[in-house]
Amino acid sequence: MTENTQRRSIGAKRNPASAEAILDAAENLLAERGLRGFTIEEVARRARAGKPTIYKWWSSKAALLLDVYQRQKTIAFQDTGNLEDDIVAFITAITIHWRDTPAGAVFRSVIAEAQSDEKAGQALRRFSDERLSETSFLILRGLERGEIKNGIFPKHAARWISSYLWFRLLTGDLDVSQQNLRRDVSVLLLGLRKDEK
Amino acid sequence: MTENTQRRSIGAKRNPASAEAILDAAENLLAERGLRGFTIEEVARRARAGKPTIYKWWSSKAALLLDVYQRQKTIAFQDTGNLEDDIVAFITAITIHWRDTPAGAVFRSVIAEAQSDEKAGQALRRFSDERLSETSFLILRGLERGEIKNGIFPKHAARWISSYLWFRLLTGDLDVSQQNLRRDVSVLLLGLRKDEK
Repeated sequence: MTENTQRRSIGAKRNPASAEAILDAAENLLAERGLRGFTIEEVARRARAGKPTIYKWWSSKAALLLDVYQRQKTIAFQDTGNLEDDIVAFITAITIHWRDTPAGAVFRSVIAEAQSDEKAGQALRRFSDERLSETSFLILRGLERGEIKNGIFPKHAARWISSYLWFRLLTGDLDVSQQNLRRDVSVLLLGLRKDEK
Repeated sequence: MTENTQRRSIGAKRNPASAEAILDAAENLLAERGLRGFTIEEVARRARAGKPTIYKWWSSKAALLLDVYQRQKTIAFQDTGNLEDDIVAFITAITIHWRDTPAGAVFRSVIAEAQSDEKAGQALRRFSDERLSETSFLILRGLERGEIKNGIFPKHAARWISSYLWFRLLTGDLDVSQQNLRRDVSVLLLGLRKDEK
């Protein structure tokens, strides 16, 4: 691309619509060309933005991909009325989303990139920390219902759930039967240890 | 390298020492040149083996790296006399090994490679499945001691431990305080759910 195809922002003020335009362009590009065709250059061209503008708001391609990924993730924390079913529903929804849409490949690629690129690593850490806070909501709802032990830290509990999901994603093990999933979730709820008599 | 620097194996019989020689060469190369300098070509040259021989026994660079990684991992399943301390000791040993030796970077790189390379993915799946069987030993010992609930599947329990470790490795979060680790392990042992009165 050449410089004159870019629309220069007038002055230093950030155009509030620009970030949305960039995310729209990124989302469309990803849908059309896939991960291999996803470049900041092409996002910039489509959004009529300068690359420096994009890099001012997103530190790396991985950071931009994470925002697109999160934008497309429309997974609610279903309220089934009890903690066990809430967790099963959440894990089921994420594994299906990863398995049946390009989201799984996108997230895997970001995790991979984060292992050798420091900026991608920072973006992933920030992102996963935000997700832990979000997933904590499941635990907080269980606390409100009186289902959860005193002294449990919601974010620590959420980390077990995220870890479980990442391991399945990264080993390509997303066809989880409901029976196996319930067995795994019951370990998290009841623990490994035998109750003392 | 040129073909004539390779020592050709005589006939189709596999030289039993060759696999060891290749692993030795791979280990030395990794120590000397790091991940960036680690190539099958150079391993072949140093081991005086043909590349086809290496690829006959290891499907990919990732598979060879995993064998080298595992060979250097001298982590025993310490018998502390109880399950909680056994698990804490195991997680502590692995996180320190990953943090303080090149092993962490090697394993991260293999997981990353496995996200876009199918052969690396297969090697990682086989490897992690073997590790789950190995880590199950901790759970089996707890079962023998009568510490664990009936109906717990050792490999499923081990998967929670591996998942926890991978998540910490991949988010660069290996400085785990003993206090936080004990809190996390107690969730796995006691579960999230409040005991019914």
